[in-house]
Amino acid sequence: MGNWRDNVRHVVPYVPGEQPQKKVIKLNTNENPYPPAKGVDEIMKTVDSDIFRLYPDPECMVLRKAIADRYNTETDNVFVGVGSDDVISVAFLTFFNSDKKVLFPNITYSFYTVWADLYGIDYELIPVDKNFRIHKEDYYKENGGVVFANPNAPTSIGEPLDFVIDILENNKDVVVIVDEAYVDFGGESAVELTKKYDNLLVVQTFSKSRSMAGMRIGYAIGNSELIKAMSDVKYSINSYTLNQVSLKSGVAAIEDEAYFKETVNKIVATRERVKKEIKELGFEFPDSKTNFIFAKHESVPSKHIFEELKKVGIYVRYFSAPIVNEYLRITIGTDEEMDKFIEELKKIIK
Amino acid sequence: MGNWRDNVRHVVPYVPGEQPQKKVIKLNTNENPYPPAKGVDEIMKTVDSDIFRLYPDPECMVLRKAIADRYNTETDNVFVGVGSDDVISVAFLTFFNSDKKVLFPNITYSFYTVWADLYGIDYELIPVDKNFRIHKEDYYKENGGVVFANPNAPTSIGEPLDFVIDILENNKDVVVIVDEAYVDFGGESAVELTKKYDNLLVVQTFSKSRSMAGMRIGYAIGNSELIKAMSDVKYSINSYTLNQVSLKSGVAAIEDEAYFKETVNKIVATRERVKKEIKELGFEFPDSKTNFIFAKHESVPSKHIFEELKKVGIYVRYFSAPIVNEYLRITIGTDEEMDKFIEELKKIIK
Repeated sequence: MGNWRDNVRHVVPYVPGEQPQKKVIKLNTNENPYPPAKGVDEIMKTVDSDIFRLYPDPECMVLRKAIADRYNTETDNVFVGVGSDDVISVAFLTFFNSDKKVLFPNITYSFYTVWADLYGIDYELIPVDKNFRIHKEDYYKENGGVVFANPNAPTSIGEPLDFVIDILENNKDVVVIVDEAYVDFGGESAVELTKKYDNLLVVQTFSKSRSMAGMRIGYAIGNSELIKAMSDVKYSINSYTLNQVSLKSGVAAIEDEAYFKETVNKIVATRERVKKEIKELGFEFPDSKTNFIFAKHESVPSKHIFEELKKVGIYVRYFSAPIVNEYLRITIGTDEEMDKFIEELKKIIK
Repeated sequence: MGNWRDNVRHVVPYVPGEQPQKKVIKLNTNENPYPPAKGVDEIMKTVDSDIFRLYPDPECMVLRKAIADRYNTETDNVFVGVGSDDVISVAFLTFFNSDKKVLFPNITYSFYTVWADLYGIDYELIPVDKNFRIHKEDYYKENGGVVFANPNAPTSIGEPLDFVIDILENNKDVVVIVDEAYVDFGGESAVELTKKYDNLLVVQTFSKSRSMAGMRIGYAIGNSELIKAMSDVKYSINSYTLNQVSLKSGVAAIEDEAYFKETVNKIVATRERVKKEIKELGFEFPDSKTNFIFAKHESVPSKHIFEELKKVGIYVRYFSAPIVNEYLRITIGTDEEMDKFIEELKKIIK
């Protein structure tokens, strides 16, 4: 009796950053400190809730059209999902079915190993160097696929487009996934390269630069054959993923290019200012091209800083894994939030 | 070059019913003809869109609490997902990992074979009898899991609780999934049995009886060990599935018990009336316990009726697979919609 337990899939899930329900300064999950575009609010106030009784368009056409227009491509080059996690999960399941190892950096978004383990995909973690840099030559060897985040997380380092082209030129027989969750904050996007390389899938998200983490919208851009294969797999999991509100508010968010630029520029300006200030306090960090800084102090351990900040209601991200446990990942908030953060930081490291 | 195609997963996806963008009488995807509870509209009008910049609670606690309260259980007995498709997909991946075949009826929700194929789960289709009835004795044999919809789709037949108990008593070593998408329209729910049988997972949805197909909310109720195993798998796919609006509007929908009863009763009354009227027109059908009728005419082929109805803007569901292709699945709409449907039906079969 109870032998059903023998056949339960055992996994080690990804652990997301804390989502405290109380009021804190939240610099721990790389959310945007500014609200979504005004059009999103208008959608909420004006949508007729009667439409909720109907299934949403399974093809998510209005949103794919808006994304295609923004990135100068066609709807059949765009796949949308419930956040970029959903998109990358579907891509892993769709494209990584060889008996060769999929390659990704040992320090990167920790969900890659989780998906690979879940779907039984063999992989090899390629070490980054001591400065957290990815060496493109490490990805020339035979493999079952390549995945990297650019800019990378949690290191915040962005590599130039030449780097991506080099990896593509040396990997024409496998799908190459470039995870551009943070690209809008200073990275170089590979979206244009999808027109040249039919095996390139670029993944982006509404969660960071478009202030829509709470609405769960991610997307991939690639040649129509890649997108069709992913769509077929998606339709084998769940026909209707993005709900009526996600579709409409996603369109409103992506159509407001002026607001997008304004908020991204504000975050970048704050980041550059914070870089200078924490450097003066004895922090070192890679040059961030993202909405966070991956930093450690010259003498005070990161875990201590993390705990002390938490006591005063400031949440940053601390990872317990080796190497990265020397660092903190600090999301860029508003100027006021960062002033408070630096004020408290000074007390802790004094 | 281009060998990446060799490693693409090939699947035969589920094909959902058409979602015409023009104004039609839509009796093809078992949606509810009445709007969601008033509280859902209030949520939309009053939610502060600033929260969209923040990730939703990955544990979906407010919604699990509301569901737990409604079904007299605890939050750790409740799993929520992006529609019941997402929930059942996760359950398949979590529980069906033996080398024995999972059993389900040959005529049932056609997504079961799609998930099994996608995840490489071996299965056996157990034939229903000529009256579309499931014989519980067919599920006594050794297996890797049992799945059935009760009431079943597209047959609309509901089996009594004794039937479910009998299957559970004869299947204690595997997970038994009862898909109760349509139970609120006249079926007998097995939710209470989850307290006795630790291997029973009952799946329900907001898409039908709660008029929320467009919001994508499904849930499972089972013992906390089952729910924990599913949650671990879910956290290995996507940490944040239900968005901020789904969580809040889901709570509003489930808390309005009076409206739920009112609309369900209206649909059941319309269904009983339509049964009588189409019987007089020469249709035969199993006795429906759902919000649809699975019917065929004594002389006019279903495909013809389907096509003719479509010409006049009335969409019903026609399946092309053998046996079921003799039938139409007709969703119960408002009384006005069904009057128009019957009026057009009379012209077609005259």
